[in-house]
Amino acid sequence: MVSRNFADVVTQRILSKRSQLVVGLDPRTDRLPEELLREPCADARAAADAVVAFNRCVMDAVGPHAVGVKCQVAFYEELGCAGMEAYAATLRYARDRGLIAIGDVKRSDIASTASAYAAAHLGHPDGSSPRAGDFIVDAVTVNPYLGSDGVRPFIEAAAANGKGAFVLVKTSNPSSAEVQDLDAGGAPLYERVAALVEQWGRPYCGECGYSLLGAVVGATFPKELVKLRALMPSTLFLVPGLGAQGGRVQDVRGAFAPEGLGAIVNSSRDVIFAWERSPYREEFGLARWQDAVAAAAADVQQELWRVTH
Amino acid sequence: MVSRNFADVVTQRILSKRSQLVVGLDPRTDRLPEELLREPCADARAAADAVVAFNRCVMDAVGPHAVGVKCQVAFYEELGCAGMEAYAATLRYARDRGLIAIGDVKRSDIASTASAYAAAHLGHPDGSSPRAGDFIVDAVTVNPYLGSDGVRPFIEAAAANGKGAFVLVKTSNPSSAEVQDLDAGGAPLYERVAALVEQWGRPYCGECGYSLLGAVVGATFPKELVKLRALMPSTLFLVPGLGAQGGRVQDVRGAFAPEGLGAIVNSSRDVIFAWERSPYREEFGLARWQDAVAAAAADVQQELWRVTH
Repeated sequence: MVSRNFADVVTQRILSKRSQLVVGLDPRTDRLPEELLREPCADARAAADAVVAFNRCVMDAVGPHAVGVKCQVAFYEELGCAGMEAYAATLRYARDRGLIAIGDVKRSDIASTASAYAAAHLGHPDGSSPRAGDFIVDAVTVNPYLGSDGVRPFIEAAAANGKGAFVLVKTSNPSSAEVQDLDAGGAPLYERVAALVEQWGRPYCGECGYSLLGAVVGATFPKELVKLRALMPSTLFLVPGLGAQGGRVQDVRGAFAPEGLGAIVNSSRDVIFAWERSPYREEFGLARWQDAVAAAAADVQQELWRVTH
Repeated sequence: MVSRNFADVVTQRILSKRSQLVVGLDPRTDRLPEELLREPCADARAAADAVVAFNRCVMDAVGPHAVGVKCQVAFYEELGCAGMEAYAATLRYARDRGLIAIGDVKRSDIASTASAYAAAHLGHPDGSSPRAGDFIVDAVTVNPYLGSDGVRPFIEAAAANGKGAFVLVKTSNPSSAEVQDLDAGGAPLYERVAALVEQWGRPYCGECGYSLLGAVVGATFPKELVKLRALMPSTLFLVPGLGAQGGRVQDVRGAFAPEGLGAIVNSSRDVIFAWERSPYREEFGLARWQDAVAAAAADVQQELWRVTH
């Protein structure tokens, strides 16, 4: 038995670091600093090695400013087996640095298969050691289209191992409305999904009042964030879409409870490639790209803290 | 440019093999024949090696009876990096044997990330060689919750590379109704998703009249299969859920057009672990497990062909 609740860990981390920032490690290999690329883009193994080197530098830079990192596994899968090794190496480094590691895997399947995914990414539901710990993270993202028997295995694995899961409710992309906003009995579908997630998660609340079962709600929909915050009082939010996707820091205020708790906000490209854009390009440039990353993370951290307090 | 359309390839294969069967390579390592397990279940690498050996034997056995295989990637992810290598080795063997390989990955993400997934599993949208071909399959499964910009990158990659994608419409699991059957403007959600899939896929029809964009519809819902067949005349169906999940061969008849085309049906546990159940246990037993697998595949193949002709 693990007594630690994932939402409690996140809440403690927010308070001790005065940060609600999660940095997205989505390494598009065509944008990595040249010094890390020995054979740029040609070979999957060389690209994967560059990704690990880059991620380590980014984690060193953002460590003081972020509660954790979120790895978008698609960018690792794209590099095949070498990429999955880079994913595992990145997660190991995040653990060593004490950063919460979120696997943005958006997995979904029927019950028996969802159990295999849950074991792969969160550990066994009986808390025993998994045969392969390569992809074990502190929390994953999960797609709700298959209903509760596709989500329950993640809840059980999370409860047994002090882990968490964030269910997609309202995603940050422009076409999310096509399915998620369909009218479902007088309310958009995402509100019906929100009610299910709140209901599934409520038995798993920690001392902080939030559940190990969280929700993904995009920063690009500020009004929906406010509505969902009210509909899901026990649910921790993971808010992607800040920066490159168009979400602004003031847009995510609605995701938070009054005391600045209840949500963590992900920024990927705007932080990890900060040296490419103003004002960091002028101040640091490519030569000091790691300082640019640290400065961008610190700026988002402080701005988030200010608008939520 | 690739002129080959995935639906045409499937249709030709159905006719030449007189088979609509896809065999699911979902290797639950606690059920593999003992002869393949050197260090049963203890070590991920040993388990992954056993999985590859098992899959090769299964593909040898079912090759004459099946149009292809479907790998449920969750069971490979569960074994970490070693498992992903086993997944890649399994796909290579399927290609060598001329079997259509379907990656049951149910991926879903926003546009730029979905592009990375599509490149990982189907190849680049410009048809150029991917840096890592490890996970390249003939078709993948995709979750529709994020709307068209999460699906379009798969369509583009499929069109450029002679590949296909099957979008989840109505899944085979008991709780699929919780989200998929929600009333969405007078029709269940899955019918609205069905209309979107038919619309997205129609510009990509092959000479056979079916599109490279298919749909996943569970064998456990025979009435819905009939309704969806009528709503989606251009859409190839991938029908899971036969056997262990409760679907019977006569239940899937509605998935097919009159001439026995328009659908392929997946059976996993009932075929690949056939020696564990009657009548194959009595006739072959563990000692001749590969013959049991071949016989079970032949039986499902023939039964499917009979009920659809």
